[in-house]
Amino acid sequence: MDRMNPSSVRAAIRSGEYRQPTPGLAPGFAQANLVVLPKSSSADFLLFAQRNPKPCPLLEVTDAGNPEAVRTAPGSDLRTDIPRYRIYRYGVLTDEVDHLKDIWQDDFVAFLVGCSFTFENALQRAGIPIRHIDEGRNVSMYQTHIACDPAGIFFGNMVVSMRPVHRSQVVRAVQVTSRFPAVHGAPVHIGTPEAIGIVNIDKPDFGDPVTIYDEEVPVFWACGVTPQRVAVQSKPPLMITHAPGHMFITDISDESLSVL
Amino acid sequence: MDRMNPSSVRAAIRSGEYRQPTPGLAPGFAQANLVVLPKSSSADFLLFAQRNPKPCPLLEVTDAGNPEAVRTAPGSDLRTDIPRYRIYRYGVLTDEVDHLKDIWQDDFVAFLVGCSFTFENALQRAGIPIRHIDEGRNVSMYQTHIACDPAGIFFGNMVVSMRPVHRSQVVRAVQVTSRFPAVHGAPVHIGTPEAIGIVNIDKPDFGDPVTIYDEEVPVFWACGVTPQRVAVQSKPPLMITHAPGHMFITDISDESLSVL
Repeated sequence: MDRMNPSSVRAAIRSGEYRQPTPGLAPGFAQANLVVLPKSSSADFLLFAQRNPKPCPLLEVTDAGNPEAVRTAPGSDLRTDIPRYRIYRYGVLTDEVDHLKDIWQDDFVAFLVGCSFTFENALQRAGIPIRHIDEGRNVSMYQTHIACDPAGIFFGNMVVSMRPVHRSQVVRAVQVTSRFPAVHGAPVHIGTPEAIGIVNIDKPDFGDPVTIYDEEVPVFWACGVTPQRVAVQSKPPLMITHAPGHMFITDISDESLSVL
Repeated sequence: MDRMNPSSVRAAIRSGEYRQPTPGLAPGFAQANLVVLPKSSSADFLLFAQRNPKPCPLLEVTDAGNPEAVRTAPGSDLRTDIPRYRIYRYGVLTDEVDHLKDIWQDDFVAFLVGCSFTFENALQRAGIPIRHIDEGRNVSMYQTHIACDPAGIFFGNMVVSMRPVHRSQVVRAVQVTSRFPAVHGAPVHIGTPEAIGIVNIDKPDFGDPVTIYDEEVPVFWACGVTPQRVAVQSKPPLMITHAPGHMFITDISDESLSVL
């Protein structure tokens, strides 16, 4: 496959040739978190996303039954173009699967949620190193005690991602990520992990721990894994998501998502 | 009434003491466009707004039946706190009324859509004069041939507002309004009205004409009147809106809506 080209990568995933995490693929193109719900609960989730735009910025919402992301990735198939999916039933992660061909229903609505990979590229271009990339790990993610604004059947606490930033670069990190509200935008918290309910910064709830050096501050951004935490807490009959790190690759450029 | 205080202005409107347009009231607080729909069509409109965030940036969506804007104006009553409402039945404007007390249904969902008054304050602070304010008129608004992205039963063309900007200040106008994606954000078009389907710049479809001086460029922003045009084109059984210029005044500050 051509690792630089979104549709080539999607085709390789679709055929089963590629089943690994997606960071680093198709650089410059936005990757997205996935949430799939039956139509009966999709209106509630759309309202949940409207009320919680920092953890759930929507890049696209499909029409019920259509597995193609017609707006952000024409020709794609959301049933097959992600390397690994998770199936939550009544709040329990019951399966991880390679495709949704067997489970797909004509009333399924897919939500593509912006991913922080987009602003990580911008941070790197601004001279701010991304520790988990440099250490070859997954980003550190934590449950918080920040309650999302509930909507219909959905409620739960925000999940955040953390990147250590040198104290001299924190202001620049806020500025750079503020330009990208469609992919979580500015940080939700800076420093003092305990103030948002994080007990041990060295033990993330999702992803991997990373080194935090002297003179670095942990900076926290709202995270697209939040819907998976919301599934566990609010227990909808069925919610399908991507597996963390295994994202959907769109045809839209990272830079097209900046507001300034 | 205290013209500086949002809840005081809302109370004066609620009691019938104030029935005029709202520009200039409660300066520094965000005003909003209103769309009210029965629950049966509200999910389609929520999706329409998600797909068309420039004309339809959502500040709040209420739970069905609750007439209070609990998030942006606690204590408010959306049935009474706007000076003038419009009722569209199957795409026809059938009534303008002072309140919704008689027509309100337990399944009504209210959408508060961001209003360009918010970024006009920011433009003025940046030294860019707002012609329609200086001339004591309503902003000029035009139908365009820019199609919105349809969703469910809703489709239609974008309505834009126009402000003449001196050619030396167009870049600054783009920068300032880009900071406010929650209230229409950056312009959708600069110059050449005919390129977006405007036949006669001196004859706006809504609002008033304003003077355009030599060396000024007409700059066009997506407009919150778009849903009223969408109602006319897509003919839902019932849509209630504010009357143009008669907005809902929230308790949230203009500046809280900037992303940077």
